[in-house]
Amino acid sequence: MSAEFTTLAEFKTLLAAAPGVDQKALDGAEERNGQLTKPPGALGRLEDMAIWYAGWRGNPRPSIEAPQVIIFAGNHGVTAQGVSAFPTEVTEQMVLNFQHGGAAINQLSKAAGADLDVIALDLDTPTADFTQGPAMTEAEVVAALLSGWTAVKDSTDLLVVGEMGIGNTTSAAAIAHALYAGEAEEWVGRGTGVDEAGLATKARVVREGVAANNTPKGLEALRCLGGRELAGMVGAMARARVLRIPVILDGFIATAAAATIGEEVDDALDHMIAGHVSAESAHPALLAQLGKEPILSLNMRLGEGSGAAVAISILKAAVACHSGMATFAEAGVSGS
Amino acid sequence: MSAEFTTLAEFKTLLAAAPGVDQKALDGAEERNGQLTKPPGALGRLEDMAIWYAGWRGNPRPSIEAPQVIIFAGNHGVTAQGVSAFPTEVTEQMVLNFQHGGAAINQLSKAAGADLDVIALDLDTPTADFTQGPAMTEAEVVAALLSGWTAVKDSTDLLVVGEMGIGNTTSAAAIAHALYAGEAEEWVGRGTGVDEAGLATKARVVREGVAANNTPKGLEALRCLGGRELAGMVGAMARARVLRIPVILDGFIATAAAATIGEEVDDALDHMIAGHVSAESAHPALLAQLGKEPILSLNMRLGEGSGAAVAISILKAAVACHSGMATFAEAGVSGS
Repeated sequence: MSAEFTTLAEFKTLLAAAPGVDQKALDGAEERNGQLTKPPGALGRLEDMAIWYAGWRGNPRPSIEAPQVIIFAGNHGVTAQGVSAFPTEVTEQMVLNFQHGGAAINQLSKAAGADLDVIALDLDTPTADFTQGPAMTEAEVVAALLSGWTAVKDSTDLLVVGEMGIGNTTSAAAIAHALYAGEAEEWVGRGTGVDEAGLATKARVVREGVAANNTPKGLEALRCLGGRELAGMVGAMARARVLRIPVILDGFIATAAAATIGEEVDDALDHMIAGHVSAESAHPALLAQLGKEPILSLNMRLGEGSGAAVAISILKAAVACHSGMATFAEAGVSGS
Repeated sequence: MSAEFTTLAEFKTLLAAAPGVDQKALDGAEERNGQLTKPPGALGRLEDMAIWYAGWRGNPRPSIEAPQVIIFAGNHGVTAQGVSAFPTEVTEQMVLNFQHGGAAINQLSKAAGADLDVIALDLDTPTADFTQGPAMTEAEVVAALLSGWTAVKDSTDLLVVGEMGIGNTTSAAAIAHALYAGEAEEWVGRGTGVDEAGLATKARVVREGVAANNTPKGLEALRCLGGRELAGMVGAMARARVLRIPVILDGFIATAAAATIGEEVDDALDHMIAGHVSAESAHPALLAQLGKEPILSLNMRLGEGSGAAVAISILKAAVACHSGMATFAEAGVSGS
């Protein structure tokens, strides 16, 4: 098919025109929840999650049958600045590991009953070093957005997007610093395992990158400071919004990617729930900026969509209770 | 078969003789964990959970194939004191709901791939009102322990025990107050939904019950202040220890039940992990007494084993990663 958008402006227009939650389904789910055989509120967040899911799916008694996990991989020119503890080749090695079924996300997708797709984005052509100017041209970021946009299956009823890209915690920190100011030091963390000196380097690189790109905002932050895998995630998140597919947000990098569209379009993140808070030190602050309360806190910091994939089973449990339980009337149980 | 124990003393002897963790399997699992294709520690608590599970199963690369959920139900004479917002008949009505598949725990067990057994313990014969003396005779508590002991299948490889019993948050609070002192007010909560006056009543009843039974400890606290469903859970937890079956602990009532054997036998709770922290106000303090860090915090307060059942999928995810991932050598991925 021909590309549905060819510029960032067209992409933004499509996202802004995407539908909101189905209020009737939301109300119906609220009503059903109040009739189920449990004291009011006794399932806690599971109740909120099920109602939220029902609203987005437009069905007061939904089910989750076809979760999809998509992992995007990209390489970053900014690794030339020495911001990662791992060599760049690991991105491609891990893509092969995903394809052969050996990574954490393979086991987690299988355990959650989710399909897994792996999309490697021009690994041989890293983005430009953003301390010297924009990481991507508009054509490059649009191509990456399109690969995410087209990767979401129409039949998917729950989406997780994840990433692999040596150097991408630095990219995510730079986006956060550009969007929310503060000190560069507040937004950098240990990623996959850098030491104190590595942290200082990351902060310097983040500061320089934001300055070199004149503190870009929204989708310009994605283009100038992001990477192809971040743009792939954003494209998939936006497509999910158009198709009213709820999204479970993963860790620091996925959250930074989401933030770029949250800044462009009001409510653009309402179909997303935060799957977990990661051990990357700035993730709690980033989630707070988006007003998202994480479902899980398991000290994970792997990326790959792994934290969100673990949360799939929590959402499945929530929806199973909501749609499968008997009402007080059906079960002949006395209310309080 | 003839009963394996006929007194509390014999039960305690069996529990004290139960095996500990398999150190060799634990070491093997630690070693394997260090070789998997992820930065060290990047799966956070999932890594700890998988290693813990491997140690108890005596297998450095285990799998979870046969989780079992057992719900025990019992009635409490102390409801005569007006401690619950629901009438006593709800215990039996909910047992029927469990048997017909309409309760939350039915959906959660199914979602987690777990078998569910429901054991109603003499619902027509509530325990005695513990403000007037012991809730149960030794013969009664031993019978309830035995029903839990015999309910655990040899083939089970992960156990969740849950409860249903109108009035049993008061029973659990009384056990906690007897074991850990403090003020009665600190241990009572809203249960399934009592108001301020109800809370004050619960605190008075807890105080009177502990005094009327001379501040009982360990299994005597279970006998004097507990209920049949609490004893059923304890019997199953102990049997799981003998069979080296890991247990995911549920909420406030299950935790109070576990505390009675924790006080009797050192390390009796080492095969247990806390599935969640519930919204019942004293649950965090009770978990802290046992040194257990909950996996989930979802504001649930239903009982039925529901919080622990949700946590089954987290443990499954942990074990799936541990046993299914490729090592760096297998995948040809460069270490840091």
